[in-house]
Amino acid sequence: MTDDLGELSARLREFVRVREWEQFHTPKNLAMALAGEAGELLAEFQWLTAAESQNPDPETLARIRAEIADVTLYLLRLADVLSIDLIEVATTKLEENNRRYDPANYRGSARKAPPAHPQI
Amino acid sequence: MTDDLGELSARLREFVRVREWEQFHTPKNLAMALAGEAGELLAEFQWLTAAESQNPDPETLARIRAEIADVTLYLLRLADVLSIDLIEVATTKLEENNRRYDPANYRGSARKAPPAHPQI
Amino acid sequence: MTDDLGELSARLREFVRVREWEQFHTPKNLAMALAGEAGELLAEFQWLTAAESQNPDPETLARIRAEIADVTLYLLRLADVLSIDLIEVATTKLEENNRRYDPANYRGSARKAPPAHPQI
Amino acid sequence: MTDDLGELSARLREFVRVREWEQFHTPKNLAMALAGEAGELLAEFQWLTAAESQNPDPETLARIRAEIADVTLYLLRLADVLSIDLIEVATTKLEENNRRYDPANYRGSARKAPPAHPQI
Repeated sequence: MTDDLGELSARLREFVRVREWEQFHTPKNLAMALAGEAGELLAEFQWLTAAESQNPDPETLARIRAEIADVTLYLLRLADVLSIDLIEVATTKLEENNRRYDPANYRGSARKAPPAHPQI
Repeated sequence: MTDDLGELSARLREFVRVREWEQFHTPKNLAMALAGEAGELLAEFQWLTAAESQNPDPETLARIRAEIADVTLYLLRLADVLSIDLIEVATTKLEENNRRYDPANYRGSARKAPPAHPQI
Repeated sequence: MTDDLGELSARLREFVRVREWEQFHTPKNLAMALAGEAGELLAEFQWLTAAESQNPDPETLARIRAEIADVTLYLLRLADVLSIDLIEVATTKLEENNRRYDPANYRGSARKAPPAHPQI
Repeated sequence: MTDDLGELSARLREFVRVREWEQFHTPKNLAMALAGEAGELLAEFQWLTAAESQNPDPETLARIRAEIADVTLYLLRLADVLSIDLIEVATTKLEENNRRYDPANYRGSARKAPPAHPQI
């Protein structure tokens, strides 16, 4: 295993190429596939309590891992076809959020202070 | 910028910690946040044709980059709280799909051969 | 106000017609819009506890009502362009589920008995 | 078959009651289930062209009908537990949109005029 997103993205590109699936992989279609997989991941958690979701049983955890893998693969593929560097855009966003959400104002509160839904 | 998912994940963990937001970050809630962001990404593409989605105008592309960043951050955070290695699970899944979808049978077809919805 | 889905669907069709938006309303695009709105609805609940979600404050409830309205409108519109009768398909599905999930086996359990995710 | 949403909602409530599933049906969990089903619906369309989505083959159409049924059932159930009248909120929203999107300004355009994503 490697912590190399770029290498995984290249392997994925090759996987798609040998199957001639590039024709289906427009950004629009990949955004749909990503959202569809995010929906399947959601379904794994929908009837769990908060506490149960922190300690899923082994079968549920195996399905969660598989769904997280699918989300990751489609996210990587979408970024690849749009020439977006995932680490770069995520780092930029995290830095913006660091400035935007002053810990002094947002500490411990996801609900009382605006915005209602603090973003990571 | 760095191609280091682990480092970004650690910075994100610290961002959450100083705001005392861990209490909100159950796997269940993070899966919801991830799916919500995937929905916002989807909305950027919903009225675009396939061709337009491959060449979004600069304003649309900027919003797409921001939504992809949000999806990435929540995915990283969810993986972190569940102690899942994104690269590892995605690599394993890609290898499984490599065996599962024989190029001889699936070449060029997303629809005619089973399954109806080939996974990456 | 009326309990008439058909009438609302007809008004929606006219709303779309006078704006010449039929060209954007392919089933594919409407399914995206529906999922995007479902994602916005999700975001309203993501940081709420189970108990809080049962008693949202007035501002949150107003946003939830608006998101539920958006989901309803896109669902009606999608059904309309595909000539699907929502009440008919939902009634059929509920009858199937009535047969499929024997109360004797599924009572009180969303998790212990298969399937893991009972459908309504 | 009947065009009676209220009756279907009552039958659904009874379906849930005899299985003692009310405990799982918090608004939060139902919003997740709704979004999950919207994701499954999305998956039916993800590799179809716009034209193909307007004319799905019989097997695909059958699956689309089933997914639309699931979305409808969860939407009805969520509205029921929050005491929201679907027709009322959707009618109100459509009237607002009628005022908000002047046909003179928005005719034929989903993209060139603000907002980028006109709502139904």
